[in-house]
Amino acid sequence: MLIVLDRKHDTPLVEHIRALLQQKYNCESHLIGENGRVIAVPGDTAHVDIEVFENIDGVKSVDRVEQPYKLASRRNKDRTEITLRPGTLLGSRAHLIVMAGPCSIESPGQMDETAAMVKEAGVSVLRGGAFKPRTGPYSFNGMGEDGLKLLRKAGEKYGMATISEAMNEAQIDLVAAYADIVQIGARNMQNYDLLRKAGACRKPVMLKRGLSATLEEFLLAAEYILAGGNHQVILCERGIRTFEEEVRFTLCLGSLPALREMTHLPIVVDPSHCAGRARWVKDTALAGIAAGADGLIIEIHPRPEEALSDGPQSLDREQWTDTMHGIRAVAAAVKRTVL
Amino acid sequence: MLIVLDRKHDTPLVEHIRALLQQKYNCESHLIGENGRVIAVPGDTAHVDIEVFENIDGVKSVDRVEQPYKLASRRNKDRTEITLRPGTLLGSRAHLIVMAGPCSIESPGQMDETAAMVKEAGVSVLRGGAFKPRTGPYSFNGMGEDGLKLLRKAGEKYGMATISEAMNEAQIDLVAAYADIVQIGARNMQNYDLLRKAGACRKPVMLKRGLSATLEEFLLAAEYILAGGNHQVILCERGIRTFEEEVRFTLCLGSLPALREMTHLPIVVDPSHCAGRARWVKDTALAGIAAGADGLIIEIHPRPEEALSDGPQSLDREQWTDTMHGIRAVAAAVKRTVL
Amino acid sequence: MLIVLDRKHDTPLVEHIRALLQQKYNCESHLIGENGRVIAVPGDTAHVDIEVFENIDGVKSVDRVEQPYKLASRRNKDRTEITLRPGTLLGSRAHLIVMAGPCSIESPGQMDETAAMVKEAGVSVLRGGAFKPRTGPYSFNGMGEDGLKLLRKAGEKYGMATISEAMNEAQIDLVAAYADIVQIGARNMQNYDLLRKAGACRKPVMLKRGLSATLEEFLLAAEYILAGGNHQVILCERGIRTFEEEVRFTLCLGSLPALREMTHLPIVVDPSHCAGRARWVKDTALAGIAAGADGLIIEIHPRPEEALSDGPQSLDREQWTDTMHGIRAVAAAVKRTVL
Amino acid sequence: MLIVLDRKHDTPLVEHIRALLQQKYNCESHLIGENGRVIAVPGDTAHVDIEVFENIDGVKSVDRVEQPYKLASRRNKDRTEITLRPGTLLGSRAHLIVMAGPCSIESPGQMDETAAMVKEAGVSVLRGGAFKPRTGPYSFNGMGEDGLKLLRKAGEKYGMATISEAMNEAQIDLVAAYADIVQIGARNMQNYDLLRKAGACRKPVMLKRGLSATLEEFLLAAEYILAGGNHQVILCERGIRTFEEEVRFTLCLGSLPALREMTHLPIVVDPSHCAGRARWVKDTALAGIAAGADGLIIEIHPRPEEALSDGPQSLDREQWTDTMHGIRAVAAAVKRTVL
Repeated sequence: MLIVLDRKHDTPLVEHIRALLQQKYNCESHLIGENGRVIAVPGDTAHVDIEVFENIDGVKSVDRVEQPYKLASRRNKDRTEITLRPGTLLGSRAHLIVMAGPCSIESPGQMDETAAMVKEAGVSVLRGGAFKPRTGPYSFNGMGEDGLKLLRKAGEKYGMATISEAMNEAQIDLVAAYADIVQIGARNMQNYDLLRKAGACRKPVMLKRGLSATLEEFLLAAEYILAGGNHQVILCERGIRTFEEEVRFTLCLGSLPALREMTHLPIVVDPSHCAGRARWVKDTALAGIAAGADGLIIEIHPRPEEALSDGPQSLDREQWTDTMHGIRAVAAAVKRTVL
Repeated sequence: MLIVLDRKHDTPLVEHIRALLQQKYNCESHLIGENGRVIAVPGDTAHVDIEVFENIDGVKSVDRVEQPYKLASRRNKDRTEITLRPGTLLGSRAHLIVMAGPCSIESPGQMDETAAMVKEAGVSVLRGGAFKPRTGPYSFNGMGEDGLKLLRKAGEKYGMATISEAMNEAQIDLVAAYADIVQIGARNMQNYDLLRKAGACRKPVMLKRGLSATLEEFLLAAEYILAGGNHQVILCERGIRTFEEEVRFTLCLGSLPALREMTHLPIVVDPSHCAGRARWVKDTALAGIAAGADGLIIEIHPRPEEALSDGPQSLDREQWTDTMHGIRAVAAAVKRTVL
Repeated sequence: MLIVLDRKHDTPLVEHIRALLQQKYNCESHLIGENGRVIAVPGDTAHVDIEVFENIDGVKSVDRVEQPYKLASRRNKDRTEITLRPGTLLGSRAHLIVMAGPCSIESPGQMDETAAMVKEAGVSVLRGGAFKPRTGPYSFNGMGEDGLKLLRKAGEKYGMATISEAMNEAQIDLVAAYADIVQIGARNMQNYDLLRKAGACRKPVMLKRGLSATLEEFLLAAEYILAGGNHQVILCERGIRTFEEEVRFTLCLGSLPALREMTHLPIVVDPSHCAGRARWVKDTALAGIAAGADGLIIEIHPRPEEALSDGPQSLDREQWTDTMHGIRAVAAAVKRTVL
Repeated sequence: MLIVLDRKHDTPLVEHIRALLQQKYNCESHLIGENGRVIAVPGDTAHVDIEVFENIDGVKSVDRVEQPYKLASRRNKDRTEITLRPGTLLGSRAHLIVMAGPCSIESPGQMDETAAMVKEAGVSVLRGGAFKPRTGPYSFNGMGEDGLKLLRKAGEKYGMATISEAMNEAQIDLVAAYADIVQIGARNMQNYDLLRKAGACRKPVMLKRGLSATLEEFLLAAEYILAGGNHQVILCERGIRTFEEEVRFTLCLGSLPALREMTHLPIVVDPSHCAGRARWVKDTALAGIAAGADGLIIEIHPRPEEALSDGPQSLDREQWTDTMHGIRAVAAAVKRTVL
């Protein structure tokens, strides 16, 4: 355990803390740095109540030097592999999963046509939104359960796994009843009741990173689901908010190798939401794979100009085909096969 | 309406769009800038389906040049004043509200003792958390309804209005049954079901700004509540996430005058969560008032060293008294009286 | 000294490092945390070559637990007070300095007229830019030495100290020859040759914080000047770049109390550049004082609509008078007198 | 030209502006949006003095709807190809340049050994720092001109082009005398005198993006060099500062396709400085290529544990070989050949 004192601190404070450690918790301690600004406590400190020290005026921070997330940590597990359907394995070193489909499910025709596009490209997961979180209260909110039915029907017809977003606790069960993967959106990354409910769900859950979440907070959010008993958690990096204004969000591809060392959970990259423009999606998708992602989730639409949501960032047929060619080539370069 | 084209665009695209405007919507248009990069459409464009143009490849953005929030806009209303209790008016030009209390309600004794501290300082709103959102799944989660009972009891005993946070839809009703103001936390700012539920609530709702929310997104979230019929919405600025690391969050006080021009809703500043250290709270609180806030919400505790949450940023009795002296002095300097 | 290992580390690495510490530097060490992820080295470690350990694969960071800046640190000095002119003291607890004037010096008439406005308001430092850094190469670049002559003349006529910006090494001497304070702009905060030159200067230097500088980097930049022998360094907080878009820059007022604990150097706040709009300057200025600033630097212009630069954020006569009334009132509330 | 008014604006202001446009500049105008919040001025507005309108109180912004950079714009040129040495072409669609070498030139042996490593890997540009910008004043500052001599000698011996950083105006000439490419660092991106001097230089200049620079500011800085007559400008994306803390800087790979549309200048990605850890460099480098970079600049060292600067992020021989294999594979996947 490390107790870091404020820049302004004095000897009586240091002695008070060391005495407390010795008398209350039987812990030795050592002084580190300029005038002993850090008090280092070696050995096991699981029995020490950390808040006692955090609350002392003059203490800047207390760190047990342990990861606050346990189940999500890579310390005890190397990789989580999740079987989405028989033969569709996410998280394996050798494979790569592509998920694609429309932002919103809009009609039977649109769903079927898009599913056919996905199938033709040879990928294995179909996405489609039935409940849409919208920044303002006056926008299209999705088809609801009717949309989920169309999604399942298309998945079954073309033999693909399906993924759809749940926005509240009741929708977790509903989405899980129709789709193979339940998605939790970036805005809900710290909606703890929703995470707990997802922990009780028996389907894989894909958790998107919040716009301003640190990687530690991201893994702590995943920990809520894991702690509920659901070990099939997929992380999705979709970009953070920075001052960069030419793209919608800044995709942290440089952090992927760091995240990979922190956790055993599979990592999917969403190139559509950060790019914001269909013609920038391909390069971003390829970069995601090169950076080590286990999968991609991409928005496509047979006629983006008619899409009810996210049209500008949805790939049309030609862009989609071209992007998939690029994806297969880069996947091969990093020795992975697209499933 | 302004249609902004991509840097790379050509004449056929421009002509296509202008023809569409003319034929489909009977709209004139004018070309602006370098090779007509912006197509300006004067007059009323309410009948134009904006997504038709957004989805055209080569269009960068379409802007109706209207605020997407209507009810929250200052265009049609100058100030919203909310009576929290008889005589306790939030949002008036002449007054200033201070809300104070513990982060978590911990016990009858702690609640009563803190309420007495709040009352002695002459302020009028008592805060106390019964449900605590925690970043990790292994922390103290609050006393729940029992805590709310203690809060109401203390509020009644000392004649103060009360505020407490609701984290999910069911808690909105529960908190509203016991407290005078329902708080929605920063992590839930875009939890739309929760916002809709708050819109159906008949108590004032204080909405905290999300860590990465723009002011427009903040007002759109407020719009959800207003659109539900609840016009008693209070905005709370509590700091955003930036690279600045010495404090927990970066408080955007410089944006307060801008926010004031955008909306008529009262603005409360939370100096505790951004400072993160009790001894930095006073200066931050004073700055908030000088910047034009309508109120403050401050965490205090009779014995911060024993607090179950947020101890490091909770003011003790002496700090609290000193801070209130400062607040009254600066309030007088900006011609406001603390209620 | 603390040596933090990567999350992935093993026993042989830990033993290798401890042996190196023992054999090469005669240092004891202790293991902290989960599997000994931190190696704590108590006592004096000034003789240890820190880069030896930083370069070991598997070491995440090495921290001597000392502030990297020495001369700027508050550890050995409480306050730096700088006499700008006889009777004009910056950095004292009891006083507050206001600096005001045009962004650019444009003509003898404009300089004199503005200086009269500054003098009437009873403040003591006149600002005026003779060399202007401009984002693009095609804008007005300032009057140069002729401008400095006008600034000095106005300062002498009205009995005020003067401040002007130097953009390169040669300009340091030139500005110092005419003005009482040499300003280094935010874009040059890490222009080390310029900082060294400023260290050799015998006039006070005001260093503006870079748009993306941490407080530690800010103080390390100040350290360059101090290390050159110039102890009259003034820090200027002018806002950082974040995703917040309604104002030009995000002013970190909440960090002022933290900065005050880190350093003894006086802190001036620039409310003009972050606000970007004249009518938002007043509230921001008042907030700066309430947050504990030692001074303000404000752009004013007799006719902002004719200004050659920064017109939109320059106060006109009426706004300036009103702002100074507010400043005096808030200064009194925090027990300081405006000089 | 578009004149955007503040949210609060009135009819007299609108009429005043339109009258001014008509009478002073003979320009028609049209009102756009809610109560005419935008005044659109079609056609050529080159004769209109934009600052006249910017300075009017109530005007939020004025936009000529032109790119403020001209020479850097892709509007008039598709690609800039730069011949670094005969046969070494940067910026062509078919090729990819890798630059590699030590952060600091330390000794004849180290330089020669590293150059051999670079040569063996078959790449064509050797980097090496002779002048080092250091955050604090107490660190190693580089070998200066002696280092440049070693760099040139190694470049000649192994037949490679060379690149080295200049930190001030005098160093531009010095570096240009010894190296084939002059580098300007991120901290100096807005050091305008340095940029002007680089504009007068006849060697290619590689300009690194500032930590908080927007893409527009980045191109405006390049414009300074281009406007000086030096058309051989290379852009280097090296990461921006965000709240993301696991890596040193956040690399904006998702913005590369946007930058490519804005400018014809070649774009090099630096995976070393953003990763900060040698073992994260490879994935980041591969992602850069997949995102469309024209080149990479990578720090390597024969013995990173002995490096005088940037040891932790320097690749050793084995990592370097492995990274180059990966680079060649991904380059082939995106149909480019490494020169």
